[in-house]
Amino acid sequence: MARTAPLSGFPELLPAQRHVEQQVLARLARTFEMHGFANLETRAVEPLDQLLRKGETSKEVYVLRRLQAAEEGADAGLGLHFDLTVPFARYVLEHAGKLEFPFRRYQVQKVWRGERPQEGRFREFTQADIDVIGRDTLAFHHDVEVARVMLAALGSLDFLPGFRLQVNNRKLIQGFYAGLGAPDVEAVMRVVDKLDKLPRERVHALLQDDAGLTGEQADACLALAAITTTDTSFVQRVRELGVEHELLDEGLAELAAVVEGCAGLVTDRVEIVADLTIARGLDYYTGTVFETRLHGHESLGSICSGGRYDALATDGRTTYPGVGISLGVSRLLVPLLARDVVVADRSVPSAVLVAVVEEQRRAESDALADQLRANGVPCEVAPAAAKFGKQIRHAERRGIPYVLFPGTDGAEHQVKDIRSGDQAPVDLTSWTPPVEDLHPRVRSNEQEQQ
Amino acid sequence: MARTAPLSGFPELLPAQRHVEQQVLARLARTFEMHGFANLETRAVEPLDQLLRKGETSKEVYVLRRLQAAEEGADAGLGLHFDLTVPFARYVLEHAGKLEFPFRRYQVQKVWRGERPQEGRFREFTQADIDVIGRDTLAFHHDVEVARVMLAALGSLDFLPGFRLQVNNRKLIQGFYAGLGAPDVEAVMRVVDKLDKLPRERVHALLQDDAGLTGEQADACLALAAITTTDTSFVQRVRELGVEHELLDEGLAELAAVVEGCAGLVTDRVEIVADLTIARGLDYYTGTVFETRLHGHESLGSICSGGRYDALATDGRTTYPGVGISLGVSRLLVPLLARDVVVADRSVPSAVLVAVVEEQRRAESDALADQLRANGVPCEVAPAAAKFGKQIRHAERRGIPYVLFPGTDGAEHQVKDIRSGDQAPVDLTSWTPPVEDLHPRVRSNEQEQQ
Repeated sequence: MARTAPLSGFPELLPAQRHVEQQVLARLARTFEMHGFANLETRAVEPLDQLLRKGETSKEVYVLRRLQAAEEGADAGLGLHFDLTVPFARYVLEHAGKLEFPFRRYQVQKVWRGERPQEGRFREFTQADIDVIGRDTLAFHHDVEVARVMLAALGSLDFLPGFRLQVNNRKLIQGFYAGLGAPDVEAVMRVVDKLDKLPRERVHALLQDDAGLTGEQADACLALAAITTTDTSFVQRVRELGVEHELLDEGLAELAAVVEGCAGLVTDRVEIVADLTIARGLDYYTGTVFETRLHGHESLGSICSGGRYDALATDGRTTYPGVGISLGVSRLLVPLLARDVVVADRSVPSAVLVAVVEEQRRAESDALADQLRANGVPCEVAPAAAKFGKQIRHAERRGIPYVLFPGTDGAEHQVKDIRSGDQAPVDLTSWTPPVEDLHPRVRSNEQEQQ
Repeated sequence: MARTAPLSGFPELLPAQRHVEQQVLARLARTFEMHGFANLETRAVEPLDQLLRKGETSKEVYVLRRLQAAEEGADAGLGLHFDLTVPFARYVLEHAGKLEFPFRRYQVQKVWRGERPQEGRFREFTQADIDVIGRDTLAFHHDVEVARVMLAALGSLDFLPGFRLQVNNRKLIQGFYAGLGAPDVEAVMRVVDKLDKLPRERVHALLQDDAGLTGEQADACLALAAITTTDTSFVQRVRELGVEHELLDEGLAELAAVVEGCAGLVTDRVEIVADLTIARGLDYYTGTVFETRLHGHESLGSICSGGRYDALATDGRTTYPGVGISLGVSRLLVPLLARDVVVADRSVPSAVLVAVVEEQRRAESDALADQLRANGVPCEVAPAAAKFGKQIRHAERRGIPYVLFPGTDGAEHQVKDIRSGDQAPVDLTSWTPPVEDLHPRVRSNEQEQQ
């Protein structure tokens, strides 16, 4: 077992880093549950025909094979899921009779993509998705709801840099292009989507060459894409471009409702903007679309994306419209952890190390540890009855803030704060560390890094 | 997407069932962290040569292949992990320089085995492992520690049937066989291990035919295997068999220490027994071995097993001894959930449904919901401003116990307990549901099922 090189694209965390991730996941879960979202997990594998419904992703799928597949049949055609949307749609169809609609769920699982690894792209990574799905219909106000819930969830991650949730609406841009008289609305969308990669003039030219627009129409499309507002003033600015279309009106009203509905959740760390560039490429969204940037780390791309599907799933008879957002937990955290932007102050849950006076008296230390645990204090007992100096260094190396020295022969127990060096007798029936020391603390290191 | 048949061996849970699993995992995690175990996750894939070090498992491994593997190289030879021990050993070797030893960790992840599905055997399932690993040496008291921690963890699952933790020690049985003069100690162990499948007389015959024992020696082996005690009286009973060996003495002392060290954790639900049949088959344990049965569900087999390895990992220069136990979370829960032995009383986290008076006033209901959330009350807003009777039924179907009716035009808000039908005005600045209604409750259904 000498070969233990890391596998590119399969990130692994050290214990203190994993604690940060656990804190993130715990805060997300709490927010989602506070809003009535139930947790779900789906199996990691899906039949290949389900996974390949979107042709784009076929290259990225990992296919499974049993090592000694004499009886290949049963496993043939299974692959690892590459997102949580396709499995969720399948789950809804499979269990529809046992679910209540509209159905809210959150799902936090690993997904796998056989991609070429690069910064921020992984072959195995964790996503946290929320979706609301209806049967036949799903009221628009759920678009506002998922935006509000994700904004509250991001707002709870106060040890991370701030977030900008960017919202747009497919109806708005499609209605605008149609109202403008574009001969091929889809083609216009495809070209405008290149604005983050190509210079403006190049896009302007492509709008004429590939999408068949006049120069004036191309001007209008670029003017639309340039609109970004933190309030509903985008409506007036779009109106000033003089385009009229029923679908545009609908999109403007919906986008305004999302921005307005989220206004109460905006803080100095978390903001929402109407950003009329956002189109979510070739994904099959039909209304609201979301992307999210992390302040100061925009090169990570969108770390939280989603939108409204008119048909998240269908079995031919019944259609299930949905709206959801997916947070790329690994995409967000792995780079921040690698750069020590966010850190935990110890590598173990223990707040106290219980010293052992001599090996024959380990049971006494075990009993003191159990007493601490009964009071809600995570702790561990020293592995060896070494000199106290060595036991203190054992705690120090793990970041454990307190060492408890058992009182021998009727003497009082003593607790040492190894950061200050202060030591004092304690009554273990009531003593607990200050609440801020009870669990590892996660803090932003952003200032020190800059 | 019409084909949505379940995949045999890949169990999936409904939301209320998943809540039970989440409760189990939360209680396990809390107990493990209270004892200083840090959480870890390893990637789901390992190089095949790591996975195949134990020849027995080769048939069970799922190998990965990229669907369109033009550049096969990078992914060739990867498989899904089939347990959490092999990946943990690899993780320790890979990150040894950044870990502090003895290193305690718990790990809760899915594992995959390409087995033929059968009752209690899955192709994808969740395990929860705890291990303590040392560098070069690991004191014996950690064997007692992991037994204590797992016993405390199982004890916390008070909505499940009781558990019997069965402990034995390889040194004890190997020393006994050696002291008896067995020509091939391993052969004796292999035969005795068949006691749960073959009748006693057949094993007696095999001990003579396959393991080269005399009839008297075979009698002694079966007498040893028959010993099961809930205290340390097994020591006397083994001594009465008149066999002497240094390794036997060591094993007896260790096993007695485990049983004695756990005595304080025994309750009417959770017990520990010295069971001298347990050998853990062909696994590479070198001292303490553990198995666990669930009261009333013994046909599930051992749902929590483990033991001491003298070399959990080695890189040639350094050896890492370890001791651990692995709880088969799916193996334990999936059958109990399928039989409704344990249930959650609602399918959503929401304790309150906030009714909507009319669609134009949804924002008022949203604001009331946020007020409840600020007081720690999970809630959701009704999806439509239907008649109140319909909104109440919406809550009822999900098991949400309370409906909040917003007071209109200065009237007081009213809360209805839909179980009792009681309705009363409330002051939302202070009202919360009784604490037992705040989150879905998990309860045993065992009585009703029998």
